[in-house]
Amino acid sequence: MNATPDLTLWGAGTSRTIRAHWAMHELGLSYKVKPIGPRTGETKTAEYTRLNPRQKIPLLQDGDFCIGESAAIVAYLSRMYSTPERSLIPESTHDYAAWLEWCFFVVAELDSTSLYVMRRHRADALGHIYGVAPEVVAQAAEYFRGQLRHVEVALADGRPFLMGERFSSADILLTTCLDWAIAYGVGICENALPYLERIQRREAYQRAVAANVPVAPLR
Amino acid sequence: MNATPDLTLWGAGTSRTIRAHWAMHELGLSYKVKPIGPRTGETKTAEYTRLNPRQKIPLLQDGDFCIGESAAIVAYLSRMYSTPERSLIPESTHDYAAWLEWCFFVVAELDSTSLYVMRRHRADALGHIYGVAPEVVAQAAEYFRGQLRHVEVALADGRPFLMGERFSSADILLTTCLDWAIAYGVGICENALPYLERIQRREAYQRAVAANVPVAPLR
Repeated sequence: MNATPDLTLWGAGTSRTIRAHWAMHELGLSYKVKPIGPRTGETKTAEYTRLNPRQKIPLLQDGDFCIGESAAIVAYLSRMYSTPERSLIPESTHDYAAWLEWCFFVVAELDSTSLYVMRRHRADALGHIYGVAPEVVAQAAEYFRGQLRHVEVALADGRPFLMGERFSSADILLTTCLDWAIAYGVGICENALPYLERIQRREAYQRAVAANVPVAPLR
Repeated sequence: MNATPDLTLWGAGTSRTIRAHWAMHELGLSYKVKPIGPRTGETKTAEYTRLNPRQKIPLLQDGDFCIGESAAIVAYLSRMYSTPERSLIPESTHDYAAWLEWCFFVVAELDSTSLYVMRRHRADALGHIYGVAPEVVAQAAEYFRGQLRHVEVALADGRPFLMGERFSSADILLTTCLDWAIAYGVGICENALPYLERIQRREAYQRAVAANVPVAPLR
């Protein structure tokens, strides 16, 4: 572990940016924040485009190294800055594979296929850009609830976290989707309620929520 | 590396199942195939649901261990069965992070947010289940082309593969999305044409295409 990492996180205010904030608080890392928002023009400046040609947030700068994609950022941080006490990724090959399975499941099914589709086509979100489509939004919500059944089954044995006894970055990804679903009125599954309460009591989560508030309102 | 792995791959016929077939051919692994398809009822049998409560394909059985999510399967296979000559994941921390960034980008942006949304709402695909929505399909195609700009930029330096000189599982994920986009008439970016031709000449790709043909037509 580098004793004095030079970390800067770009982005605040979304269910994806909070993942990177949260991971750094879990790992006990100090970092600088550039709380730029999506669709504010701030991701399209020459400076930012040089750092991230994708013009998306979040983006992590670690010295000269840059990395985007929230799930990749939290995995990178854990690989780079874990300690025996603080880690967000399981070590053993099978646990690592199961962790990766959860990460891709949450990102692909709960986020991109469901909640982000809702976001793009809701009248009160990005529908003015991508087209308002209430039927598609309703189907995406239904799909989300269907996929959430697997979370319900996984948590049915009373495990504190998705991977068992140890909190991992899969919990970061899942929690942000659960929060997002609640904000959208989609509803979450029964076993996710005590899970979410337990996680929301974590100090690192609370600090991340505070750090993720955008400076200016999103346009 | 386990000298005699006991591998069974469930699933064939989709742009996601081919990823797992392909990875095993790249790694020179022998495996058994259960070429079940989605929405045929075959993913809902008691036997399969016990293996994969998500009732999705692909699923890899490695002895008693099961893993789903195509991107996670290829990462697992590489971690478990790489040799010095054959590996699908870079080693160094920064290359590993960049590889993971590409994997999540392809799965989230090109697959789930774009092509799979098109699949769900096209009249000639799953529109009869999720609702036919031509405007949403057009927006998803436009989004795909926008996101593909980053592939265009990355490949502009003439690198043979997404990560540079070495083929990786990020190429597996990207290629399946490019093939999918061509099949849907979306079109791909200019630099992706020679890239795709180069990749399609790989023996492992050709074997995967052959292995991925479903036994019965998909309903």
